Amino acid sequence: MPVVYGRVALIGLGLIASSMSHAMRAWGLAGEIVGHARTEETRRIAAEIGLCDRVFETAAEAVQGADLVVLCVPVGAMASVAEEIAPHLKPGATVTDVGSVKQAVIDAVAPHIPEGVHFIPGHPLAGTEHSGPRSGFATLFRNRWCLLVPSEGVPAEAVARLRSLWEGMGANVEEMDAAHHDLVLAVTSHTPHLIAYTMVGVADDLRRVTDSEVIKYSAAGFRDFTRIAASDPTMWRDVFLTNKDATLEILGRFTEELFALQRAIRRGDGDHLHAYFTRTRAIRRGIIEAGQDTDAPDFGRMKASR
Amino acid sequence: MPVVYGRVALIGLGLIASSMSHAMRAWGLAGEIVGHARTEETRRIAAEIGLCDRVFETAAEAVQGADLVVLCVPVGAMASVAEEIAPHLKPGATVTDVGSVKQAVIDAVAPHIPEGVHFIPGHPLAGTEHSGPRSGFATLFRNRWCLLVPSEGVPAEAVARLRSLWEGMGANVEEMDAAHHDLVLAVTSHTPHLIAYTMVGVADDLRRVTDSEVIKYSAAGFRDFTRIAASDPTMWRDVFLTNKDATLEILGRFTEELFALQRAIRRGDGDHLHAYFTRTRAIRRGIIEAGQDTDAPDFGRMKASR
Repeated sequence: MPVVYGRVALIGLGLIASSMSHAMRAWGLAGEIVGHARTEETRRIAAEIGLCDRVFETAAEAVQGADLVVLCVPVGAMASVAEEIAPHLKPGATVTDVGSVKQAVIDAVAPHIPEGVHFIPGHPLAGTEHSGPRSGFATLFRNRWCLLVPSEGVPAEAVARLRSLWEGMGANVEEMDAAHHDLVLAVTSHTPHLIAYTMVGVADDLRRVTDSEVIKYSAAGFRDFTRIAASDPTMWRDVFLTNKDATLEILGRFTEELFALQRAIRRGDGDHLHAYFTRTRAIRRGIIEAGQDTDAPDFGRMKASR
Repeated sequence: MPVVYGRVALIGLGLIASSMSHAMRAWGLAGEIVGHARTEETRRIAAEIGLCDRVFETAAEAVQGADLVVLCVPVGAMASVAEEIAPHLKPGATVTDVGSVKQAVIDAVAPHIPEGVHFIPGHPLAGTEHSGPRSGFATLFRNRWCLLVPSEGVPAEAVARLRSLWEGMGANVEEMDAAHHDLVLAVTSHTPHLIAYTMVGVADDLRRVTDSEVIKYSAAGFRDFTRIAASDPTMWRDVFLTNKDATLEILGRFTEELFALQRAIRRGDGDHLHAYFTRTRAIRRGIIEAGQDTDAPDFGRMKASR
């Protein structure tokens, strides 16, 4: 594949940035990949495993001369990073990010972006429960969606170029506005994560059932919740603080429905429960048909653990 | 492995029964395996794929001469099946079940068990989101737990024999009383399933986010919920109707914790959220160390889908 950007700077070197680096190299999408991480430890590991061609101590140094700057830091850190790098951005460069919320990132970053630099917020819907510079792999984005939220006035060519980078890494790209993005993600990601965290917290906290029982008997359903509740705490704290309104809206609907089911259980209304549980099966089928999950029983765990 | 039971009768031929049949055959644990299913369709498929040595039209016929009878029907159907088979049970036979709740099964079945027949309720903590006679496979129980809840007065030899059947199929066996079983399962299975069903229901019901968006963008977390919300509706209706008290207790704790997190989000209390999300990571680690899940990123889905 032809090189899409001459030099790419990755700011923050966790799961997404390290996967981007592997993917860009695998498919020859970047001339040079440079990076920066806040902690010395992460920079050391990145250098050790050769994650980037060069690793810089500051974000300001890393972005100099870069054609594409990708902000891969928690949403809460976006504003200060944007402020730091702003004076060092190359005219005509594109700045994007991979944060899980978009309006808050726009509010934090856009005011710092200088004239002549194109800001195109983005969000690859891909990840695992692992984090850090060693957790990335080249196929993370394959057949996953990447949502772009271009600011007004950004040239179409700049958007098309970023799109071809993501497509080159195997992703499908779609554009939408920030408010709709944040609502869709509140449904498909943020609220499910909060609920999973809560369920795991309840199990951990229960006096009459021991932790070792919860762990031993987790295969009955609970363990699926623990995977997403093992995700990075800082990232998720920032998601909930910055996508507050949409998350609270969906949480409100969730508790309303949960109370209706709870009432059906209390009253012994089997028909209500059966109808509800039948309806939810169809969505699973749709997800498998759309290629967004495996139909192998139990996610194919049997194979993975052999 | 030596034959544990001369003849085993499987009543109900879904995921668990068909997996038991494959496992007993694979490791030579039963002399003969006979079966019965309520619907003609299931009996036809079972005969077609050779799931049992013989398939009977009634449960009463199937249990005649059986050394072990395994009730693999939804919990709500246990009482009528027990009543039907009672006069036909062989003296000295063992009756067990695989239901997800235990006190309700004991209440439904025990009164029908004749003198001289041993009733040992059981529950293998294994399953997938698939159901029906074609969904079973021999390794479903490998390294999973099977909980036995022996009635008082059942001879130790009868319990030991059933235990060796489950161990022969690869399971680890533990004994506990019915009330504790039902509470542990409310935490590790029943409440997580109800919550997953609810979250999927909310997503399906939302006007401002389309179904196709929910499906396309599900890889961000939501799809994990859809797997367990695709489980058999009849089985789950019966679970909630028959483990009402424990489920409602755990649901109460769940909503209490959820409201505390919701309040932290509303107030912007990042420290509370971060501390909570950090604590839940440890449980995931424990589950992987206990061999109850894979550490492969994303449950090893990448491999499963290739």
